Amino acid sequence: MSIDVDTRPSDTDPGPRDDLGAGLLAALDGPFHDERQRTRAELRPEEVLRDPLQSVDDAREWTLRALQALAGHEFGRAGTDPQYGGRGPLAHSVVHFELLCAADMSLAIKSGVQHGLYGGAIWNLGTAWHHERFLADALEVRTPGCFGMTEQGHGSDVSGLETTITYDERTAEYVVHSPTPTATKTYIGNAGAHGRMAVVFGQLIVGPKLHGIHAILVPIRDADGADMPGVTCGDNGHKGGLLGVDNGTLTFDHVRVPRELLLDRYGGVGADGVYRSPIDNANRRFFTMLGTLVRGRVCIGGGAATAARKALTIATTYAVRRRQFVAPGHPEGVVLLDYLAHQRRLLPAIATAYAYGFAQNRLIERLAEVALLEGGDERAQRELEARAAGLKAVQSRFANDAVQACREACGGAGYMTESGLTTIRQDVDVFATFEGDNTVLLQLVAKQLLGDYKQAWVGLDPVKLVQASAKSLGGAVVDRTANLPGVDRLVAAAQGTGADTVEHRGWQVSMFEERERHVVGRLAARLRSAARSGEAAFAATNKAQDHMLYAARAHMDKVVLESFVAGIEACPDPAVKDVLGRLCDLYALSVLEAERAWYLERGRISPQRAKALTQAVNRLCGELRPLADDLVTGLGIPTAWLQSAMLGAKMEA
Amino acid sequence: MSIDVDTRPSDTDPGPRDDLGAGLLAALDGPFHDERQRTRAELRPEEVLRDPLQSVDDAREWTLRALQALAGHEFGRAGTDPQYGGRGPLAHSVVHFELLCAADMSLAIKSGVQHGLYGGAIWNLGTAWHHERFLADALEVRTPGCFGMTEQGHGSDVSGLETTITYDERTAEYVVHSPTPTATKTYIGNAGAHGRMAVVFGQLIVGPKLHGIHAILVPIRDADGADMPGVTCGDNGHKGGLLGVDNGTLTFDHVRVPRELLLDRYGGVGADGVYRSPIDNANRRFFTMLGTLVRGRVCIGGGAATAARKALTIATTYAVRRRQFVAPGHPEGVVLLDYLAHQRRLLPAIATAYAYGFAQNRLIERLAEVALLEGGDERAQRELEARAAGLKAVQSRFANDAVQACREACGGAGYMTESGLTTIRQDVDVFATFEGDNTVLLQLVAKQLLGDYKQAWVGLDPVKLVQASAKSLGGAVVDRTANLPGVDRLVAAAQGTGADTVEHRGWQVSMFEERERHVVGRLAARLRSAARSGEAAFAATNKAQDHMLYAARAHMDKVVLESFVAGIEACPDPAVKDVLGRLCDLYALSVLEAERAWYLERGRISPQRAKALTQAVNRLCGELRPLADDLVTGLGIPTAWLQSAMLGAKMEA
Repeated sequence: MSIDVDTRPSDTDPGPRDDLGAGLLAALDGPFHDERQRTRAELRPEEVLRDPLQSVDDAREWTLRALQALAGHEFGRAGTDPQYGGRGPLAHSVVHFELLCAADMSLAIKSGVQHGLYGGAIWNLGTAWHHERFLADALEVRTPGCFGMTEQGHGSDVSGLETTITYDERTAEYVVHSPTPTATKTYIGNAGAHGRMAVVFGQLIVGPKLHGIHAILVPIRDADGADMPGVTCGDNGHKGGLLGVDNGTLTFDHVRVPRELLLDRYGGVGADGVYRSPIDNANRRFFTMLGTLVRGRVCIGGGAATAARKALTIATTYAVRRRQFVAPGHPEGVVLLDYLAHQRRLLPAIATAYAYGFAQNRLIERLAEVALLEGGDERAQRELEARAAGLKAVQSRFANDAVQACREACGGAGYMTESGLTTIRQDVDVFATFEGDNTVLLQLVAKQLLGDYKQAWVGLDPVKLVQASAKSLGGAVVDRTANLPGVDRLVAAAQGTGADTVEHRGWQVSMFEERERHVVGRLAARLRSAARSGEAAFAATNKAQDHMLYAARAHMDKVVLESFVAGIEACPDPAVKDVLGRLCDLYALSVLEAERAWYLERGRISPQRAKALTQAVNRLCGELRPLADDLVTGLGIPTAWLQSAMLGAKMEA
Repeated sequence: MSIDVDTRPSDTDPGPRDDLGAGLLAALDGPFHDERQRTRAELRPEEVLRDPLQSVDDAREWTLRALQALAGHEFGRAGTDPQYGGRGPLAHSVVHFELLCAADMSLAIKSGVQHGLYGGAIWNLGTAWHHERFLADALEVRTPGCFGMTEQGHGSDVSGLETTITYDERTAEYVVHSPTPTATKTYIGNAGAHGRMAVVFGQLIVGPKLHGIHAILVPIRDADGADMPGVTCGDNGHKGGLLGVDNGTLTFDHVRVPRELLLDRYGGVGADGVYRSPIDNANRRFFTMLGTLVRGRVCIGGGAATAARKALTIATTYAVRRRQFVAPGHPEGVVLLDYLAHQRRLLPAIATAYAYGFAQNRLIERLAEVALLEGGDERAQRELEARAAGLKAVQSRFANDAVQACREACGGAGYMTESGLTTIRQDVDVFATFEGDNTVLLQLVAKQLLGDYKQAWVGLDPVKLVQASAKSLGGAVVDRTANLPGVDRLVAAAQGTGADTVEHRGWQVSMFEERERHVVGRLAARLRSAARSGEAAFAATNKAQDHMLYAARAHMDKVVLESFVAGIEACPDPAVKDVLGRLCDLYALSVLEAERAWYLERGRISPQRAKALTQAVNRLCGELRPLADDLVTGLGIPTAWLQSAMLGAKMEA
């Protein structure tokens, strides 16, 4: 075991159970256990832990060097063809990114920019011609590269990008240009200092015709680091975190680029000067291009959740050591985690970390499966994108909240940079924003749900639609996402028995499903009804915006719970299974407790049962508290990576 | 008007109303309007705004110099007798601290340490002998001083401090000593670099007798900055924020200090070698000493809320300028604040900022009133302490959440340090922890509520107690804190009419009152019942810890709403009064919406009314949105202090 958290047993601790932590770890690692263990062992602390006290310049330099060193032993190459330097399956690239987030998030994001975004754009949007010339230099970090999507005026709304890529048939070149100040590319990783090349997204113009957004490779700095002619690189400077990543701006003044540098897998001008694309519709073409980049969102969601696991490991390890206030029966002081309020701060968050871990594993598997379809199944691709968007949003929200709770749970000690917590807090903050603002992403999820809905109910009267029974809606519209027979069996059992305790899994699942079904159904009815009443379309959707966000969250809650159930089913060890079951209870009941107003408003639970939720959460906290050490062992953060002086661990970097 | 927020009017903006913002500002400034306006004009940006990119060393140096410069023109002297350099009333010291938090929180905290804690301890715990010798140097920052309370092993539980202050009658000296590693003073402001003197808290031992915690002045560094013999000063180093404050550690190895340096207003050894104190009970003596330092908590709560106001001003100003996504009727893109989800992120938080502002004004007035009683009214003093603790906890919680929401509401731009938001976020974080951990403070509030309860119901059977009617409980136990006839009238009106809309103020107030009354009543019954069943006292209180925290929050919600009502009553301008009324609705209904599960569980509101809360919050957001500019003008942050490049404002420092 490389995971070994050393703690002093507290008053109520029944003593260590060596195998339980290992069993939890194996279960939570799931299908990627071997690769995760291999990576934990391989990433040496001195290579991947950054000194948080570095200046911005030193942090950037360290991060570049560390990334190059990792590339030297083949890190960052999963998911690409071996003939261009690739190694291992696509899924492993996500696994590696997530674990790097447990070491240093600057290094992880620099890798994400270089391998995932820059390399990924070449791989996914380019052809063999580009792969042969640019991919190895990208993977081996010989050419630091940028992903030039976001513009000053267009963050969430990338279809409105203003940068132009105009074909000049006279010279067979493209002219890349920033026509306005708001067309300036900004917050671009690697643009601030190290980038040599950039994949630049802009509106392709050929003759009089606009072909929508395409991507083109543009050299931005020469070998000495000077701006290329017509290119102006700027530096976004100091940020709220991720100090090792050099974000910057890119502005183009009629920059001429050879025709061949357009990443033209989905369209471009041929040697004959004629534009051709395998996809006729410009909008559909752009979304297809974006779709190939879905891995980024899968990575960011998983990375944020991993950062939360690290903070939970630090704060929980502290909470089983630290004592405060003597009390009758506790002459040496009460151990922090023996306080109910402290348990409620940390243990439901640990349960949620497990829940998201199972959901994320399933998402990574789905990413790999859909990639094998090679874009052949558009519905599967859209579902994957919605799932990735939703899990990115809820995991990054969870991470921000959980890391802050951990910081506060360690009091003054947690505010010292040497605690390790403040750096995690600062770095993970922007995970709520980049690779898609969470509010926008949740609306994407809601639209996907409504799309399903529309497909299933075309032509149906909205009134009838609203009145349709939960049962028929459930089958046709809101699929059970885990698609596991276990879930159906559980729900059926709940209906048969009456499910008289809140710990009945079938009851929990059916409550989650019912909320999703009802909220989505009402949303569809509401939007239809608003459209019929003649209100402007924007005003109508805007009035329901909070409803849309709620629908997306209700859907994601259900997806996550069903993944947890599937994860428990897959666990072979009864003792581990028992603990996972209690963690799943704690996750499910915490969500139901937080959302109980919704159920009460609709008479779906009685006031008595609502109060029982709070009691059950408290009881489960008490039951799981003695297992705290094992629970954090299962979260999979190597002790040597914690970088937390207050735990007495040496900082290894 | 020194407050002047320059924004581009958005699509739905009816245009500027110059007087409304000024009227809101005057109302929210309340009794301190003149002093606040004077201070806003007097604190020049170049004196109080720090460059957030400074290194830790530069930040500390700048902060010390800035504090000395402020002291040079009499800042930081309110509340002390003019004969020792004091200027102006006690209340103004809080007003000044709050406004400094809108400029630079490092500077504010350094002032809080120097003037409030170090100077305040000399003033409150010392005698004329100490005032004459040490106070002017403290106020004028000639002697940077520390407040040595917190120890490594004793953060929240300060009554367990281990440092010893042992009287040596042979030499008429005290010996200050750190007997264990956990006795090390830590996180002490000014200890890291600048401090020359420290007020050190420790257990006073005279002969065989322990007299409990006392405070003594100890020189810690000589004129050249070298540690005094026996004193070891350490540096806590880099923190999650407040980089301009030099927190550090202090360890004492049998340090000898003349007898006169004990701050002996509440007890000490006389020239005859005999210990005397005006307060016999050691515990009571310590809490009396702590009570004199209540101003610190009043400052921290108000300072946190002021930081939130600054972030809300930045994010709202951005949200009325920034556009994203074109939509039908919005060809240039929809202004961010026209989105319902964005309104819900910012406008209820602005309403809450107003609510806390009124409550804080009342607390400052109370602080000044109770100070005039000179400790003569112990009940008034305890109530003040509980109010200060509660408002510190809820305001710092609000600030952390609101500032994070503001950061996220500005997307990638909000993560750049030049936005001004990340520095506020990092600095305000620890406000949840210092001057009392929020969880501990809320329990203090709950205990105070239970204390009241006990007093009112001594001898009553707990079963009868629970069954007692809400009416009689309301009068005797949970006082209407604002004590304004307006509130009684409103509640009476609600009972008379049936209050059929959720905007009926009387209904809102009665709902807040009922929740507090019921939660506190049940808590009292539960603790009595648990005590009777023979469970260990700790286990019983611990089981109810979440209930205690909830009771404290319910109480504070009510206190805040009643202060808001009083603030509206005091406003002479009908147009301003109307807007304040809608802000108060938004605050009250946001709280009721968030807490609606509690009311539903107890049948206190119908499902229909619960849903009406959400609809009303959305409607109020729409009504207040066109007034966004005026609402932030009323928050009182000078435009020149915003330091936010994304607003196009020049950074003045």
